[in-house]
Amino acid sequence: MTKVAILGATGYSALELIKILLRHPHAQITVATSRQEGNPQIGSVHPSLVGRLDLRCEDLGPAEVAKRAECVFTCLPHGVTTSIVPQLLAAGVRVIDLSADYRLDDAATYTEWYGEQHGDPDRLGKTVYGLPELFREQIRGAQLVANPGCYPTSAILALTPLLKAGMIEADDIIIDSKSGVSGAGRALKLTTLYPECNESISAYSVGKHRHTPEIEQIIARATGRRPEVIFTPHLVPMNRGILTAAYSRPTRSVTQEQLYATFREFYAAEPFVRVVDQPPSTKDSVDTNFCDIAVRVVKGRVLTISAEDNLIKGASGAAVQNFNLMYGYPETTALL
Amino acid sequence: MTKVAILGATGYSALELIKILLRHPHAQITVATSRQEGNPQIGSVHPSLVGRLDLRCEDLGPAEVAKRAECVFTCLPHGVTTSIVPQLLAAGVRVIDLSADYRLDDAATYTEWYGEQHGDPDRLGKTVYGLPELFREQIRGAQLVANPGCYPTSAILALTPLLKAGMIEADDIIIDSKSGVSGAGRALKLTTLYPECNESISAYSVGKHRHTPEIEQIIARATGRRPEVIFTPHLVPMNRGILTAAYSRPTRSVTQEQLYATFREFYAAEPFVRVVDQPPSTKDSVDTNFCDIAVRVVKGRVLTISAEDNLIKGASGAAVQNFNLMYGYPETTALL
Amino acid sequence: MTKVAILGATGYSALELIKILLRHPHAQITVATSRQEGNPQIGSVHPSLVGRLDLRCEDLGPAEVAKRAECVFTCLPHGVTTSIVPQLLAAGVRVIDLSADYRLDDAATYTEWYGEQHGDPDRLGKTVYGLPELFREQIRGAQLVANPGCYPTSAILALTPLLKAGMIEADDIIIDSKSGVSGAGRALKLTTLYPECNESISAYSVGKHRHTPEIEQIIARATGRRPEVIFTPHLVPMNRGILTAAYSRPTRSVTQEQLYATFREFYAAEPFVRVVDQPPSTKDSVDTNFCDIAVRVVKGRVLTISAEDNLIKGASGAAVQNFNLMYGYPETTALL
Amino acid sequence: MTKVAILGATGYSALELIKILLRHPHAQITVATSRQEGNPQIGSVHPSLVGRLDLRCEDLGPAEVAKRAECVFTCLPHGVTTSIVPQLLAAGVRVIDLSADYRLDDAATYTEWYGEQHGDPDRLGKTVYGLPELFREQIRGAQLVANPGCYPTSAILALTPLLKAGMIEADDIIIDSKSGVSGAGRALKLTTLYPECNESISAYSVGKHRHTPEIEQIIARATGRRPEVIFTPHLVPMNRGILTAAYSRPTRSVTQEQLYATFREFYAAEPFVRVVDQPPSTKDSVDTNFCDIAVRVVKGRVLTISAEDNLIKGASGAAVQNFNLMYGYPETTALL
Repeated sequence: MTKVAILGATGYSALELIKILLRHPHAQITVATSRQEGNPQIGSVHPSLVGRLDLRCEDLGPAEVAKRAECVFTCLPHGVTTSIVPQLLAAGVRVIDLSADYRLDDAATYTEWYGEQHGDPDRLGKTVYGLPELFREQIRGAQLVANPGCYPTSAILALTPLLKAGMIEADDIIIDSKSGVSGAGRALKLTTLYPECNESISAYSVGKHRHTPEIEQIIARATGRRPEVIFTPHLVPMNRGILTAAYSRPTRSVTQEQLYATFREFYAAEPFVRVVDQPPSTKDSVDTNFCDIAVRVVKGRVLTISAEDNLIKGASGAAVQNFNLMYGYPETTALL
Repeated sequence: MTKVAILGATGYSALELIKILLRHPHAQITVATSRQEGNPQIGSVHPSLVGRLDLRCEDLGPAEVAKRAECVFTCLPHGVTTSIVPQLLAAGVRVIDLSADYRLDDAATYTEWYGEQHGDPDRLGKTVYGLPELFREQIRGAQLVANPGCYPTSAILALTPLLKAGMIEADDIIIDSKSGVSGAGRALKLTTLYPECNESISAYSVGKHRHTPEIEQIIARATGRRPEVIFTPHLVPMNRGILTAAYSRPTRSVTQEQLYATFREFYAAEPFVRVVDQPPSTKDSVDTNFCDIAVRVVKGRVLTISAEDNLIKGASGAAVQNFNLMYGYPETTALL
Repeated sequence: MTKVAILGATGYSALELIKILLRHPHAQITVATSRQEGNPQIGSVHPSLVGRLDLRCEDLGPAEVAKRAECVFTCLPHGVTTSIVPQLLAAGVRVIDLSADYRLDDAATYTEWYGEQHGDPDRLGKTVYGLPELFREQIRGAQLVANPGCYPTSAILALTPLLKAGMIEADDIIIDSKSGVSGAGRALKLTTLYPECNESISAYSVGKHRHTPEIEQIIARATGRRPEVIFTPHLVPMNRGILTAAYSRPTRSVTQEQLYATFREFYAAEPFVRVVDQPPSTKDSVDTNFCDIAVRVVKGRVLTISAEDNLIKGASGAAVQNFNLMYGYPETTALL
Repeated sequence: MTKVAILGATGYSALELIKILLRHPHAQITVATSRQEGNPQIGSVHPSLVGRLDLRCEDLGPAEVAKRAECVFTCLPHGVTTSIVPQLLAAGVRVIDLSADYRLDDAATYTEWYGEQHGDPDRLGKTVYGLPELFREQIRGAQLVANPGCYPTSAILALTPLLKAGMIEADDIIIDSKSGVSGAGRALKLTTLYPECNESISAYSVGKHRHTPEIEQIIARATGRRPEVIFTPHLVPMNRGILTAAYSRPTRSVTQEQLYATFREFYAAEPFVRVVDQPPSTKDSVDTNFCDIAVRVVKGRVLTISAEDNLIKGASGAAVQNFNLMYGYPETTALL
């Protein structure tokens, strides 16, 4: 049994993480933090947890957290995380960070895209990126894991096998992604008020979304080839799910069969990637830790389509997958 | 041509009002107010209006408004309205108030349900309630009209013909209403954040909703019989529409045919009430100024079901219907 | 390990049943039937099951099913079930029937509401109704269990404690229910085509819904008092969830506290009924086997509000709860 | 006053057409056809029209239709249309065809993409394409107008100004479109059953959608340059709206300002194209005849984003715009 803490327990990925951990036979949630006053019961913050988890949200510092947990999941806003993680690591706990703070290679890129100085620059470029399909062995031994962003997971899994095999050009990639609204978080914003986004679709952060460098740098780490991607995210009127269409140009003529063979071989042993024949609907991977991938050749271009639950494979499910690897539990525990 | 002002132009009923008035051949929107800084173009507040209305939102007082408009639609929060309406009336303009401030009979009831002192108590009980189906003649001559609440319109139209005809008891009425989320307004609240209310239905303000006394008092005004109603509103994951199920007990045995005859006679000349054979779906009155009503006898009880667009017949469409009556334009102008 | 069969595997409750059983350590799905041609893989019928269950849908008769399974879940249309269940029982297998065929007390009521002769009338009135909260002991020993309807579960759980305690009148009950669209099944109907029911709410089967006698008869079985209920179901634009508002008249003056005390005592030992302080949102019980219940006194009437997932506590979760009881597994297995 | 007929009155674009025409001061709907038995009232086919249009749907042949209408809107399935239009034209009526039958240049392309022989091949390539922004003058004098497809309108308006100005390459265009479900029509299909497409997004007809050659051929007609496009449509859980992201490669380095200047100049006089600063949300053009267009430069590529209501600017609004041009009415009549 591993004692785990969840920092920033009020958001959607924290809720999903708790639900998964409640089914985990070897994890015990001992700490949940939030800045809300009065140490509210977790069930008053997330009514779906009433009767399922008897725990109060406390406003605790890292030292106190480290006394009560061996593994800490940080679901804090970017920027805040770097002020806490170093102390947690120094105290000897292992950390799975669901924020963006430790995903990038260098502080300059962080500042360019996030508009802030990075609070713990020495760990950039050295922190393991928690995508088991690409970095499983490093994850097992890591003290700190940077849990992937939701869009990057869908894009990286869709592109890496082809780039690694040299089948597509690295500098002509267009990623058109569509996400459910939970991806925008639980903070109050006019753009995610129900009547503002219901019955409507729109692109946002065009050319400026922070997951762009994450996609490029992680693929470079995994393949040795740094891609240049155009990434356009869209907000779709549904709670959960990401669908990514990745358009690329083959280096030489390829058939759909060759592409499928590459994907099937690459992911043959993966428990959570399904290479599927038909273009996936997000509903079929929502509420699961699967990422579904299909591929097509259209007029000589390659179109890879991937689908996942942004809160599970794109966040909390991946975090538990990492947790399982780090603690030697079967990788699929609590995830099937 | 009548010059009109819209106070509180940033909300959903104001937007709907503007859209309707843009189709009105005899209304010219000359003023739109909001407290937002910088006098934003209306098109930046409501992007659907880009290219359709060239007007800035200004932060103006009633004196200035009165100089530039003959008729003022107030879409302000309750409580704020009473601080402005008296000055508008004194300046000689006519006012159609979409807030709840002038709907009730007396200040005591207002304080009981709204938790505040009323700012203009002398006008309570004397202000015309802007439901043309019941108070058409008074509306024509009114300087101030209290535009009905969204739920009350659906409930009052469903119950008044039966109460007036003495066909149902006044003290055994249950009103179970369901509303789209736009009814909760455009202010930021966790309860109307997309992932909080999408794919979910819940009752709210059980036994405490402020439209309860409005329903009771207005029916009393129209019928001479004060009903006692239990009113339960629900939030439904859709943008617009209200469906009301009103359960009542007949004073004597009635048939469905007799009930329909009563409704059809009562609303025979009404342009915006449709007595329909089948229980209505809200989609069929959404985007219109119609209220659809069906009635059934179930195990000796009467069940009246009414449907309307909460922002049109339940707010801005009714306001324009009142405007048409007040200024002698054909009642259906801009509403069909 | 118990070998189970699922008859009628193409619908939504069958899919949900399979998902739950895949997490059950003591159940093995050995048979899935459908009438579709060509014995399709279950993953082609339900793409969400790709890679999770390797099984073909076969068109098998009861004799063949009985050879390969000890327990059979029938997810067939009403009327069809009675032609199969007798043979299954004769072959010695145990049956959990998710259709309506064995829920009612007598064939006359069945014919009145379902418009058909009952195909196995001798078992009516003798078949255990699979609501563990009321009939747990009978379920344990049953060979055939009639799994409850989705609406009845929400209504019966909301009303039985009060009727049993003599706190409300049996003949003045109004049940206003709201359901997600999956409750209408996966058959093609214009009323459940996306643009027909999205962004709309409507009542249907007013005064005629077949769950009415089920609610009345089962409450009578459990309490000895036969209630008379007015039941109005509504279709709500969401996939899943039922919210039921049950209005009743207290036999004597009661307080909210007394009502809560009654509910909390009645359900004190129940793993899947949560008596909650705030009126529940369906989202908080969707994807779980919980039924959430809150109660209020409004103007002297009692309003009980219950919420559940129509496909889980209202169908397949309850079926697995029954399965657990019948086979001596911990009641919550695969359900938390 | 022009007498108009609507053939195939039961679908969603026909309903939308009727609603628009009911506001048209110079159009009178004299005929509505469908194959439904019993000549149902239009209000029983489309309940939203109860009390608004007193007309029966009849099963009439073209000769009878031609006697009672001057202008015929055909909302029939492709393939059926060609069996009727020649007779209508021979009888002297003017036809606005909302099907795909007369949009393409040649019968070979039609057969390639629609899988059938074309029934009236001589008119292919000679029929005016009813996109007023490109072919206004030809539309005025046409007897037959091929009303554009919903996706093509959004794509053609987004690309033509840039292609005509020689600013982008014609052979490197990716169009990623997202549509509401009404675009799939009112026929019963499992893919558009509510629980199948709600809370989910998916790509469909990847590389095979029939609007692909329409986009290419019409742009070629308008610009003299035949583009080669990759077109990927997606089904989005909303009733209405299309959002199109068109990625292209500039022929030489361009700035966002230059692109905007080109769009603003091209559409300067257009009443229904809004060149907008921010990437549009579909909600802001839904229920209007506007197409909103924004443009960005992302890493040296051009991304044009367009939004429209698939049933209005993408179908019935455009049809009325064409009607207005053909009959000399102000082009915006009934459309603002």
